[in-house]
Amino acid sequence: MIALWLEKNHLSLREDIPVPSPAPGEALVRVRLAGICSTDLELVKGYLPFTGVPGHEFAGEIVSINEANGSPTVINPSTGGGTSPATSARAVAESQKGKRVVGEINITCGTCWQCLAGRKTHCEKRTVLGILGRNGAFTEYLTLPVINLHQIPDSVSYDAAVFTEPIAAALQIQMQVHIRPGESVLLIGTGRLGQLIARTLALTGCDLKALARHENQKQMLASFGIPSISEENVHKGKFDIVVEASGSPAGFVLARMAVRPRGTIVLKSTYRGEQETDFSSLVVDEITIVGSRCGPFPPALELLDNKAIDPVDLIEARYGLSDGLEAVKHAARPGALKVLIYSD
Amino acid sequence: MIALWLEKNHLSLREDIPVPSPAPGEALVRVRLAGICSTDLELVKGYLPFTGVPGHEFAGEIVSINEANGSPTVINPSTGGGTSPATSARAVAESQKGKRVVGEINITCGTCWQCLAGRKTHCEKRTVLGILGRNGAFTEYLTLPVINLHQIPDSVSYDAAVFTEPIAAALQIQMQVHIRPGESVLLIGTGRLGQLIARTLALTGCDLKALARHENQKQMLASFGIPSISEENVHKGKFDIVVEASGSPAGFVLARMAVRPRGTIVLKSTYRGEQETDFSSLVVDEITIVGSRCGPFPPALELLDNKAIDPVDLIEARYGLSDGLEAVKHAARPGALKVLIYSD
Repeated sequence: MIALWLEKNHLSLREDIPVPSPAPGEALVRVRLAGICSTDLELVKGYLPFTGVPGHEFAGEIVSINEANGSPTVINPSTGGGTSPATSARAVAESQKGKRVVGEINITCGTCWQCLAGRKTHCEKRTVLGILGRNGAFTEYLTLPVINLHQIPDSVSYDAAVFTEPIAAALQIQMQVHIRPGESVLLIGTGRLGQLIARTLALTGCDLKALARHENQKQMLASFGIPSISEENVHKGKFDIVVEASGSPAGFVLARMAVRPRGTIVLKSTYRGEQETDFSSLVVDEITIVGSRCGPFPPALELLDNKAIDPVDLIEARYGLSDGLEAVKHAARPGALKVLIYSD
Repeated sequence: MIALWLEKNHLSLREDIPVPSPAPGEALVRVRLAGICSTDLELVKGYLPFTGVPGHEFAGEIVSINEANGSPTVINPSTGGGTSPATSARAVAESQKGKRVVGEINITCGTCWQCLAGRKTHCEKRTVLGILGRNGAFTEYLTLPVINLHQIPDSVSYDAAVFTEPIAAALQIQMQVHIRPGESVLLIGTGRLGQLIARTLALTGCDLKALARHENQKQMLASFGIPSISEENVHKGKFDIVVEASGSPAGFVLARMAVRPRGTIVLKSTYRGEQETDFSSLVVDEITIVGSRCGPFPPALELLDNKAIDPVDLIEARYGLSDGLEAVKHAARPGALKVLIYSD
C-alpha cells in the first residue's frame, strides 16, 4: 500500500508497505482521511526518533477484526449506554465490519500500574499510533485494538470526525483544570490545535481572550465571538488561567507574565529543548503549571454529534495520499490550519 | 534598641535603631523570640535587595495599639468564634495590652484586586515583615497591623509559638494540593522547614517518605515514625506527590524523576537563579508543578494547641540578641535545625 514513511528525519512516499495484519483483539481499519498535526511536523524535525508511518488523527472504517482467543470484538458505541449481549464472538466481529470509526492513539497493556490506576494514556508499555512504536495513519490501512475504536455518530461526517483526536486533546484541559464560568482565560497560540482549544474553552463560559498571530486565525476566532488580544495589551498578572499552545519559549514567558498570583498555566503543545524558568517567582506567586496531553474521545464525539463544535471550517487544504509530501509541506506553512490527507 | 541590620548583603549588630511607632491600626509588639529561616539566610546572600531588620518568625507581646481613626483594635482570637462586642475602641485597645501574639508577615492594603479576591498574601501593595519594605523581628520591638496578629493559646509556649509561621507555610501545601490518605508522598529536603512539612504531611495519613541528607534529621524523622529513603531507592515515576523543600536544582531534578505521570511536584523553598526544565516531558507525563509560599495561621495555632504538632525538639540553639550574628552563622551550618534569637 501507499504510505508516508519517516526514517532518520526524512519523510518519503513509499508504495511497498505491506497491509498490516491485526493482532488478536485488533481491527484492520481502512483509513479514509487523516489530519496533519504539529506533533507530526515536530516528529519530522526529530522531536522523537520515530521510524515508520506517521499520522495519528484519522477517520476510517473497519475492514475486519481478529477475534482470536476471546479478545474484545465490540467497538465503543457512538452514544452512551451498553452494547447488546454478544451471541458469539464471530457474529459480533462480523457485525462491526464497515462501521465508521475514529481511534484512541495510545495502545495500552491494561495490566501495568498506570492502566490499573485509570491513567491509560500513561501506560508504561504503551505504543502510540504514528508516534511511538506503531505505524500510523498517513497510509491506506492501519491496525488498532478494538477497544481503542469509537463509532462515529451517523450525524458526524468523516471531515468532522477526523478532528475527534485534537478535540479530545483540547478537552483534556478541562479534565485537568477546573475552569469556572467567568474566569479570565488567555489562550496563546491559535493554530490548528489552538482554534479547537478556543472553541472548547468558550463552551465553559469563561472570559476568553486569544493571542493570535495570523490574520486568518483572528478572523476565525472572531467568527465564533472570541476576541483577539495583542501582546501589548496583555496586562501583567491579570489572567486566572493561561493556556500556552504556541510551543515557543516566548509563549511561555508571556504566559508567566500574564497569569495572576495563584493562577494556572496549562502547557498544551510540543516543546523543543529545555526552558529556563525562575522557580523562586513561581513560589512567590504560587503559580501552578500543568502539562496536558491526550484527552477523552466520548465527549469529543458528543460535542461533534450535538454540533456544539463544528470544526470543518478549519480545513485549509485536502491532498490525496500520493501528494502526501506536499500536504506535509503545506501544513508547515506559518499560520496554516488543518491539512487533510485523503486515501480513498 | 538593639537590632540585626542588613544592608548591601552585609549583616551587622546595631544599637541605634529607634523603637518603631505603630501607624493607625498597628500594634507595637515586644519581640520575645525570633526564629531564623532559610529565607533569612538567602536574604543575607542577596536573594532580594532588602535593607533593614530581617526576621519574620517571632512570638511576643502587645505593648500598645494605635487605635486612631477607627482602625481595628482587636487581634485574632486564639480559638474559633467571635470576639466580644467593643464598648469603646480605647477600652478594647487597652484590653489587648500584654497579650501574647504571633503575626502574619504579609502587610496588605485590603483594597487591591488580590486582597478583594481573598488572596491577601498576594496583595499587590504588600510589604513583608523582615523581607520586603518593613523591618522585621531580629530586634526588640516591631510593629504590625492589629489584624495580622493572632493570640497565642494559653497552652502554647513562646518556644512552640515561634514556629507558627513555618507551620502555616507547611500547611499551605494542603491548602493548595489535595493530599489523600494513602497517597505516596516524597519529601525532598528535611531541614528546618522540611521537618515541619514532614510532621504536617504525616497528619494527612499519606504514605510519606523523606529524603534526608543529615543523620540528625533522619533520626528526628524516625522519632515521628517517618521513614527516610536514600536517593538510590527513589524509584522513577512512583510518587503521587513530591514536595521539593531543598531549594537545590538537584532536588528538582530528583523530584521530576520521582513523580508519577499526572502527579504533582510542590515547590516549597527559596530557589536561586533559573532552572532548566524539559517542558515536553512535563506535557507528555502531564505533570503539575505548584509553587507554594505563606499559609494560614489559625490552623497552625490549632495544631500547636491540640499538640498534633510539637516543634520544640527542632530547637537546636538559642542566642541572645546581642549574639545575633553568631546565631545567624549557626543557622547557616549544613544540617542545622531551628536557631532562635531571644530578646528578653
